[in-house]
Amino acid sequence: MLDDLKDKFHDECGIFGIYLNHPRHDSEAAQTTFYGLYALQHRGQESAGIAVSDLKRIQLHKGMGLASEVFSPEIIARLQGQIAVGHVRYSTTGESGAVNAQPLVFHYLNGMVALAHNGNLINTKELRANLSAYGSVFQTTTDTEVVANLMARYSKDHMEDALAKCMIDMKGAYSLIIMTEDRLVGIRDPLGIRPLCLGEMQGSYILASESASLDTVGAKFVRDIKPGEIVVIDKTGLKSIQAVHSGRTAHCIFEYIYFARPDSTMDGINVYQARKAMGRQLAREADIGGDLVIAVPDSGTAAALGYAEESGLPFEEGLIKKRYVGRTFIQPTQAIRELGVKLKLNAVHEVVRDKRVIMVDDSIVRGTTSKNIVKMLREAGAKEVHMVVASPPTCHPCYYGIDTSQREELIANTMSTEEIARHIGADSLHYISMEGMVNALMPKTDDFCTACFSGEYPIA
Amino acid sequence: MLDDLKDKFHDECGIFGIYLNHPRHDSEAAQTTFYGLYALQHRGQESAGIAVSDLKRIQLHKGMGLASEVFSPEIIARLQGQIAVGHVRYSTTGESGAVNAQPLVFHYLNGMVALAHNGNLINTKELRANLSAYGSVFQTTTDTEVVANLMARYSKDHMEDALAKCMIDMKGAYSLIIMTEDRLVGIRDPLGIRPLCLGEMQGSYILASESASLDTVGAKFVRDIKPGEIVVIDKTGLKSIQAVHSGRTAHCIFEYIYFARPDSTMDGINVYQARKAMGRQLAREADIGGDLVIAVPDSGTAAALGYAEESGLPFEEGLIKKRYVGRTFIQPTQAIRELGVKLKLNAVHEVVRDKRVIMVDDSIVRGTTSKNIVKMLREAGAKEVHMVVASPPTCHPCYYGIDTSQREELIANTMSTEEIARHIGADSLHYISMEGMVNALMPKTDDFCTACFSGEYPIA
Amino acid sequence: MLDDLKDKFHDECGIFGIYLNHPRHDSEAAQTTFYGLYALQHRGQESAGIAVSDLKRIQLHKGMGLASEVFSPEIIARLQGQIAVGHVRYSTTGESGAVNAQPLVFHYLNGMVALAHNGNLINTKELRANLSAYGSVFQTTTDTEVVANLMARYSKDHMEDALAKCMIDMKGAYSLIIMTEDRLVGIRDPLGIRPLCLGEMQGSYILASESASLDTVGAKFVRDIKPGEIVVIDKTGLKSIQAVHSGRTAHCIFEYIYFARPDSTMDGINVYQARKAMGRQLAREADIGGDLVIAVPDSGTAAALGYAEESGLPFEEGLIKKRYVGRTFIQPTQAIRELGVKLKLNAVHEVVRDKRVIMVDDSIVRGTTSKNIVKMLREAGAKEVHMVVASPPTCHPCYYGIDTSQREELIANTMSTEEIARHIGADSLHYISMEGMVNALMPKTDDFCTACFSGEYPIA
Amino acid sequence: MLDDLKDKFHDECGIFGIYLNHPRHDSEAAQTTFYGLYALQHRGQESAGIAVSDLKRIQLHKGMGLASEVFSPEIIARLQGQIAVGHVRYSTTGESGAVNAQPLVFHYLNGMVALAHNGNLINTKELRANLSAYGSVFQTTTDTEVVANLMARYSKDHMEDALAKCMIDMKGAYSLIIMTEDRLVGIRDPLGIRPLCLGEMQGSYILASESASLDTVGAKFVRDIKPGEIVVIDKTGLKSIQAVHSGRTAHCIFEYIYFARPDSTMDGINVYQARKAMGRQLAREADIGGDLVIAVPDSGTAAALGYAEESGLPFEEGLIKKRYVGRTFIQPTQAIRELGVKLKLNAVHEVVRDKRVIMVDDSIVRGTTSKNIVKMLREAGAKEVHMVVASPPTCHPCYYGIDTSQREELIANTMSTEEIARHIGADSLHYISMEGMVNALMPKTDDFCTACFSGEYPIA
Repeated sequence: MLDDLKDKFHDECGIFGIYLNHPRHDSEAAQTTFYGLYALQHRGQESAGIAVSDLKRIQLHKGMGLASEVFSPEIIARLQGQIAVGHVRYSTTGESGAVNAQPLVFHYLNGMVALAHNGNLINTKELRANLSAYGSVFQTTTDTEVVANLMARYSKDHMEDALAKCMIDMKGAYSLIIMTEDRLVGIRDPLGIRPLCLGEMQGSYILASESASLDTVGAKFVRDIKPGEIVVIDKTGLKSIQAVHSGRTAHCIFEYIYFARPDSTMDGINVYQARKAMGRQLAREADIGGDLVIAVPDSGTAAALGYAEESGLPFEEGLIKKRYVGRTFIQPTQAIRELGVKLKLNAVHEVVRDKRVIMVDDSIVRGTTSKNIVKMLREAGAKEVHMVVASPPTCHPCYYGIDTSQREELIANTMSTEEIARHIGADSLHYISMEGMVNALMPKTDDFCTACFSGEYPIA
Repeated sequence: MLDDLKDKFHDECGIFGIYLNHPRHDSEAAQTTFYGLYALQHRGQESAGIAVSDLKRIQLHKGMGLASEVFSPEIIARLQGQIAVGHVRYSTTGESGAVNAQPLVFHYLNGMVALAHNGNLINTKELRANLSAYGSVFQTTTDTEVVANLMARYSKDHMEDALAKCMIDMKGAYSLIIMTEDRLVGIRDPLGIRPLCLGEMQGSYILASESASLDTVGAKFVRDIKPGEIVVIDKTGLKSIQAVHSGRTAHCIFEYIYFARPDSTMDGINVYQARKAMGRQLAREADIGGDLVIAVPDSGTAAALGYAEESGLPFEEGLIKKRYVGRTFIQPTQAIRELGVKLKLNAVHEVVRDKRVIMVDDSIVRGTTSKNIVKMLREAGAKEVHMVVASPPTCHPCYYGIDTSQREELIANTMSTEEIARHIGADSLHYISMEGMVNALMPKTDDFCTACFSGEYPIA
Repeated sequence: MLDDLKDKFHDECGIFGIYLNHPRHDSEAAQTTFYGLYALQHRGQESAGIAVSDLKRIQLHKGMGLASEVFSPEIIARLQGQIAVGHVRYSTTGESGAVNAQPLVFHYLNGMVALAHNGNLINTKELRANLSAYGSVFQTTTDTEVVANLMARYSKDHMEDALAKCMIDMKGAYSLIIMTEDRLVGIRDPLGIRPLCLGEMQGSYILASESASLDTVGAKFVRDIKPGEIVVIDKTGLKSIQAVHSGRTAHCIFEYIYFARPDSTMDGINVYQARKAMGRQLAREADIGGDLVIAVPDSGTAAALGYAEESGLPFEEGLIKKRYVGRTFIQPTQAIRELGVKLKLNAVHEVVRDKRVIMVDDSIVRGTTSKNIVKMLREAGAKEVHMVVASPPTCHPCYYGIDTSQREELIANTMSTEEIARHIGADSLHYISMEGMVNALMPKTDDFCTACFSGEYPIA
Repeated sequence: MLDDLKDKFHDECGIFGIYLNHPRHDSEAAQTTFYGLYALQHRGQESAGIAVSDLKRIQLHKGMGLASEVFSPEIIARLQGQIAVGHVRYSTTGESGAVNAQPLVFHYLNGMVALAHNGNLINTKELRANLSAYGSVFQTTTDTEVVANLMARYSKDHMEDALAKCMIDMKGAYSLIIMTEDRLVGIRDPLGIRPLCLGEMQGSYILASESASLDTVGAKFVRDIKPGEIVVIDKTGLKSIQAVHSGRTAHCIFEYIYFARPDSTMDGINVYQARKAMGRQLAREADIGGDLVIAVPDSGTAAALGYAEESGLPFEEGLIKKRYVGRTFIQPTQAIRELGVKLKLNAVHEVVRDKRVIMVDDSIVRGTTSKNIVKMLREAGAKEVHMVVASPPTCHPCYYGIDTSQREELIANTMSTEEIARHIGADSLHYISMEGMVNALMPKTDDFCTACFSGEYPIA
């Protein structure tokens, strides 16, 4: 999929932390965290940061850009210590800028803390008002600073109790990694909306947004952090506290559709296999006469392979994605119009010419990209272009940490499926059904948050 | 394949030129050339440059880095004129640096010229010695400066005659785009070793290394420039001169194996289909019992699809390539060793676990990457790993513009196929046969340069 | 003097604020503040920042480097509003970095505030401990964040009362400019240690560290802010509150000796004339037979002119200071040793050859620079070199916002005047007397802080 | 004087070379050259470059910006070799950019050469035409490339003969340092228009534009290179060839007025003393009733001291020049108009208030700066402002390497002295007389080029 063409939902953050199980005075913790962030880069490209503790004090480096731009070998070498926590961030609206980069490091009554947060609180305004009345000051508009001040509010409690109280105060989606001078703590919100998992490497524990980052650093996946769980890692090992019991889950289903890496497994489901299963389901639901199946690379590939397998039609690389895409490029003007998609994708004429093409993508947000791709395929000689989409129409905004577009920009809010098909120029258009999508993820019985499709929000 | 892991052959350059068929005082020519270079970026990432002519004088901008780094909208806007020529460069050995970036712009007796060159001359030393004896000075060690001085040597001839004489002097591989104040000229060496094709957009002619770049800018492919042909484009239209007849061709076969984009068609053969055909041929040649076929992305995918099709085995995405790879990253140390491949690729455990995996790649150079990928697949649970390679063993250096490694670094020079299989840890290893590879490219009857496999060089 | 050779005391900060007396929706306030900071750049080169308010909300831009590096015309253009406050910072010890750049902007119960601070509190540790016990969190180690949290502690008081309470809590030296959405406030500590003055430009008020910055922006000097005074500027005009009465002053005497610009006038005394008067006093105190008087440029020039005038000896430019000094340069090695001073200064051989030279400087800290200059003069042919210093020996550290070196690095702590003369290779060395220095600043009767010479600290 | 306010003539280049008299495999030659360029930075700030030879091959590094920006310790460390030549450049008109940075390194029949050039040829066009007819190509429009091609034209002669022939061909002003693999050569044009001198450091020879750069690196001044002389330094020592005898000299008098450092001595005359003598002469010529003498810093200071000495009036620092001037700053708009000079200079009110001020500057080009300074002094309270100028009116362009403004921009071309006085707002204006100026430089009998004042050009 064309992720930087602004025609996709966007995740907000990736987090990673490690507690080495033996005293270290080098930068191994920082280095492992750097590679962990590198593997989570798809979850946020705006800023990156790493904080380390040598059990005495916490050091921090963060900046704007990709992890590989923010960190150099020299910087990593200076970040010495046994514990580390890192963060990559995608900014949602206007509140961009270095001041909002994470982790947030602060001093309070009990010492120093580094906070890394993925998610979104829905009662931030109320929490800030309460805290301000007690004399809190805020230097940013981030949720993370609210969490820091909440922790300080309970600074006379034992840490576990303080965090459990914070969890009662915080409404919304949050996966948090918290580092003090001598502890690493992981917290997942009561519904488990955003992901967080536990890994292990030569006896040392790791916390991470996705299991694929454990593979990258050479660690083993242990388990997902449970909804409502607090995990505390210190020199005595790992302790789990089930701070809140909600009796249900609401895992974000979009992680499986688009956000997460195909090589990650979350809450028991491998993302690649989930996508393939959705593709197979689509083939069962849509009955289209076609000659071949192609994907919109890269995110549509798994579903396309599933579709091809189930339908018995051949899978071909009909669209080629460009390598070496620089981060910025100039705007087309004059005769060179609507160049957008062509800079990233190109059709293989010899593959699609005179063929009835079934094109698989993971989702449609505004429809602009789809329209351009359909046009490109027709110009390359395709006889028919049928689009199939491995998610239902997206009609509702997300309040739990995903950058959905404005409601009015979501094409499915303003047009019927037939109208969209006509709009994008496709001969037909098929979305997977809600039921089909959820069934494809079975036999897992956990519930998912499908609010962006259904408008049924798990938290009021 | 993991192109920046230094375990691949490398192309040297991509070139692109346009002559707008109507007087222009804006930057459309420069802009189109920028997008053309953008589409040819895989042919060279070290430097980029564009020269334009407004029929009176030539302006130039070039620099180190990707086209999107070297050019900004402001810079493009300043490059106004009706004709443009651009270049992206990959440097071979130590002679890197801004001074060698192209196009080379120079003044000589007949005015100004911009030169963009893809290829390598094999008699450079001799040509420089001759020219020096006549008083030439050289500011670089590039072939391009030699070509410029050769042109000046014949500056009292008509341009076509001068270029024909230059072609007699120059031995080796060269595709050249030459821009004077009022002409755009394309030249291809007598054996057609390096590619060059002609496109057309709303009546304006384009010259480019690959047809995919024509698609990107919205132009139509017209034909390949013939070996030994000079094409001169000016206000009167296009004129073709068959300057040299060699009676045979020696197209670089590695363009089909790895260099060119799958969506390009060169000398009558589509690259994606060529690779797929090689994959099918491999399946016929290799008789391996496997459960599934996977590719080393991205360059092995087409061959893997061909293999799967011919063998009847399912194709799966067993290896996931990371998006958002920053250009530099820090070196692993200590406990985090041999991280290399893991930063770019990861295995999908759920796909390969307990399976007999057939892994397809386009080529093996030093074997380091293959070894690490095989190891990664085994750690992910693969029962057997069989590697099949869509090109024969590479044993010989290239003198025609390709950066092959040192002879002693080419693993096929020091080990037998069985030894390589053992070295990389594969259960078996199969290369395509020379005959099979060439047949897969039929029914085209043109001859190819296969010197890197066979050691049979088309020029002494 | 050679300010960047680390052989000088260093000031910590410069501050500047403006309240335009007519509603504005452009960047004039930011622009004036930028030029004000530009004129105060000598007070701090590490970071620069400007915050503006359009009466509704506060915007901020800050960064590392000179004001001219941190701000571009585009950035200034975005900072629209009627009120602005700016800051340039010199970092004292290790606590450098972007996170400490000022102004500090924060939200609290009563809205948004921007804080710019020059000075140093001596009870920071105690204040932080008290605030932490109430639940405050600190993201930096700066005094400025302490002031912000103190203000929030009193957020239920009227602002003037809150600030008066803060002044009771804060011990030490501080000049503060505070901007809320609709007010600009200036505060000077009860002893007036650090400078702060009031200007006026076409009916709009300005607050600034030095009067020279008023000249630069075209404003008129009105008066100095009084020790212990709070000045509140809003749409109703200017209101003065004498929050604290201490009955005495302790203006930092080093502002006159070295920190301030010669064209500034502080607390009634012009800096250039003060320096000249100290030079005349020196000539009366030191009775040296010399042929000519030279200055160590630029900071020794005024005193040297005074010395020449009083002694009747000619003043000559015997040392030339280099223009176009880049900010960094490489380290000398091998044969090129002790190059340091030579890169900045050079002797005019024809001026000093065979002469008895009296060399005037403003102060000696470690003596390294003086030693190198004396050596340079001798190599240029000077017959005798007598050094006279327009301040007494500096033996004591400053706790009020000046970066003095470590006690043991202050050469006057470890050597007698004769020993220093021998150490630096001078034929004689004369410091001005404490009494002479203070008298030279008369007839002003204000008291000065001379703790760095006398060790008598005005605050316990 | 306010050099970057574009109200001054500008020099074109500074050059520096060294031949270490003992085999070296380190970067001492490059390092010494770096410091030499650092000391010559006032002669050109656009680009900097250093080439070194280890007797076998030549390496080069050059770039845009100050020497301290172009070179880092790492870069210097890589430039190993026994001989080095460096260059700093100020670009005259549009032909700016990296491609024109020097030294120019080229290969020709006899090996490699690095060229550094200060000056301007007046027959460039003719030389290029001749060389083009022989097949030369030119990649830039610089004189330096012409010199390189000329050398190649005579490449079959012995080097000294070849250079002597080049000197016959080249008309105009040139000081050249030429480095081959094993020699360092200095050349000065037959009239000695641009400066070049010889130094010596521990037995090693140095060539440099100004003697002050010898002081900086710790070398001793030996002598000036003679007009028309070629100096060849190699392992056998130094050899001098008087290639051309012109029987007269035409040293650029503006070097003494403004370009050169006061601490340099050129062709027997110390610059500081020359300026002071011109100031004394001015005092004799101008009979003005004043209370005090001030300089426009820094370039007017020496003349002001001479004026004060001769007139008996006190010299005061009435104008203070700002330290820490960043290289770029934003443009004033709106209410803040004509801020220009105020950002660089400020008047000391207490010094000039109610006084009759005599203000000394070295030259007037367009008058803009002078006008602003006079206004500033009046606003600071000066009763009268009399301007005296230590050079005659500049009416004629320079063709020998100086960037004079366009003829019509030279205020002395369009107004009488009285009109200029009125234009700049001064009570009176006095230029030194031609005769007075030249006499002040006596008892040296060499002739000077005074074409910019007189229009009498020493070369047709």
